[in-house]
Amino acid sequence: MDAVNRQVRLAARPVGLPKPSDWDHTEEPVSDPGDGEVLIRVKYLSLDPAMRGWMNDGRSYVPPVGLGEVMRAGGCGEVVASGHPGFEPGDHVTGVTGIQEYATLSGDGLVKVDPELAPLPVYIGTLGMPGMTAYFGLLDIGKPKEGDTVVVSGAAGAVGGVVGQIAKIKGCRAVGIAGGAEKCRHVVQELGFDACVDYKSDDVAKALRQHCPDGIDVYFDNVGGEILDAALAQLARNARVALCGAISQYNATEGMYGPVNYMSLLVNRASMTGFLVFDFAARYGEAAQEMAGWLADGRLKTFEDVATGGVAGFPDALLRLFRGENTGKLVLEVSGG
Amino acid sequence: MDAVNRQVRLAARPVGLPKPSDWDHTEEPVSDPGDGEVLIRVKYLSLDPAMRGWMNDGRSYVPPVGLGEVMRAGGCGEVVASGHPGFEPGDHVTGVTGIQEYATLSGDGLVKVDPELAPLPVYIGTLGMPGMTAYFGLLDIGKPKEGDTVVVSGAAGAVGGVVGQIAKIKGCRAVGIAGGAEKCRHVVQELGFDACVDYKSDDVAKALRQHCPDGIDVYFDNVGGEILDAALAQLARNARVALCGAISQYNATEGMYGPVNYMSLLVNRASMTGFLVFDFAARYGEAAQEMAGWLADGRLKTFEDVATGGVAGFPDALLRLFRGENTGKLVLEVSGG
Repeated sequence: MDAVNRQVRLAARPVGLPKPSDWDHTEEPVSDPGDGEVLIRVKYLSLDPAMRGWMNDGRSYVPPVGLGEVMRAGGCGEVVASGHPGFEPGDHVTGVTGIQEYATLSGDGLVKVDPELAPLPVYIGTLGMPGMTAYFGLLDIGKPKEGDTVVVSGAAGAVGGVVGQIAKIKGCRAVGIAGGAEKCRHVVQELGFDACVDYKSDDVAKALRQHCPDGIDVYFDNVGGEILDAALAQLARNARVALCGAISQYNATEGMYGPVNYMSLLVNRASMTGFLVFDFAARYGEAAQEMAGWLADGRLKTFEDVATGGVAGFPDALLRLFRGENTGKLVLEVSGG
Repeated sequence: MDAVNRQVRLAARPVGLPKPSDWDHTEEPVSDPGDGEVLIRVKYLSLDPAMRGWMNDGRSYVPPVGLGEVMRAGGCGEVVASGHPGFEPGDHVTGVTGIQEYATLSGDGLVKVDPELAPLPVYIGTLGMPGMTAYFGLLDIGKPKEGDTVVVSGAAGAVGGVVGQIAKIKGCRAVGIAGGAEKCRHVVQELGFDACVDYKSDDVAKALRQHCPDGIDVYFDNVGGEILDAALAQLARNARVALCGAISQYNATEGMYGPVNYMSLLVNRASMTGFLVFDFAARYGEAAQEMAGWLADGRLKTFEDVATGGVAGFPDALLRLFRGENTGKLVLEVSGG
């Protein structure tokens, strides 16, 4: 192939919000796939809060992205050449493509998807990692029972929006926390939550007392910080806190904010449990099937926020996440559907 | 009866460490017990970190002690008069006597104990609430498996010392955290822990990395603060943190310390669960029987630190807890055994 592969590489470990100089924009020729490999033309890239953690040095659940390496990212695209018997040109797949226009990957790490059944961005959103995260985090960690009050932060985001909708499907009361009147309107009117607290204008602790008079049975946390504290203060007896993320803290330069109300876990005999979606990989198929059914019958709605600008637009698009500017799953369009 | 009942009442809600002026020393005549009641001459009073929380106003797992009320406390003593068919003079009992020399209580809240089988202070220590707290907190919340590394803070205290000993009985490695060389010696040499970190002279985070090279499977927290953070940083995959208390924070005047390393729960798919021993009341008998067996065969050792001075000595004796001066269960002798 004569095509050129434009890429974004990590040039420096960011302090606080990633700056333009933390990235290198590079190009290299596209090479044919080797034995067992598949060459993919990337169509959409997934922009996720977790990316910020991957840029830091140090021990975590995955190794950090090395300096000079193509930035790690999930993506979906079309197979253009295959050295793997399971894939042929024209197939659509999802995988860890990285921030680049073409990815040459082992076929073993790819999942075939059908663009006739759902638009490609859905496969890296509601039917991809964010959807799986919502599904297993809520059902396996949060363990909601019918009639429970489920509160989720980042409720207008890719994960939070699905959490609240599944909570409703399971017969719970769903209360979201999101930033801004428009997001709260989206959460209640389009996603069907019972209520949404606007952390930018409401006193969150007071609003949670109001919307959760019997306490919070399940709190699904995507944000950390003072919002986590406000939720802890309102836990019901035997509450479960599912720790999914802490986006408010990922760019902190003066140290993490520790939840000062954590002793509410003791008073309320409650638990706070961290999880990583990868641990549920063996059950992704089962979850995707159930969620696809809910999508098909209209009980689950999916929203994607598509950023344009191609891979060159990645640094700016990523900042939209940390500024809380996206509604629904933030994806970067690379070469269109 | 002509006896006088000396009492200590809560005069003011303390800010920080309780001051002498936060207490009232009162006397009242001893009255005969009514129907269903029992008059007890108190012999030993239990001094517990939780008492500090009971002095604060506001919602918690029990109502606060009211201003002007006799300070709440567990105790043990001898029945001197009984209006309850289940008790007669000469019986020994434990119950919530309060900080006073005589208590008139409903017989329904009392438990008979046998001073021939164990000295009275043991019934408010290892066979009382602290022992029950250690037993259920470790076994039901911490869920240790043979070969696990169990770390406990406040390891020289009434609860922590029992936690580590039960961990050893269950085939775990037990690592304590305590303040000072003498306490650490006690924890290792007398209680049989595998190691003890001296938080007054060691870098706790570093020492935990050293003593728990494969990570901490169960962390039983009595202290909170930076020690909790150090333990969180060293959790093993799927670790369980049992939240029992936070004595380092109970007298804080500038707000609680929130554990900044709480996201280690996510990275390690770990959980932090609060509990209150009262929820296990239905199983106290079973636990006491098993622990009495361990005491009898020498696998479980019990240490009491007996403060003297009678009820008038209560305010000073209580401060010994918060200064970390006790080794083993701190009890206040009121009228001797």
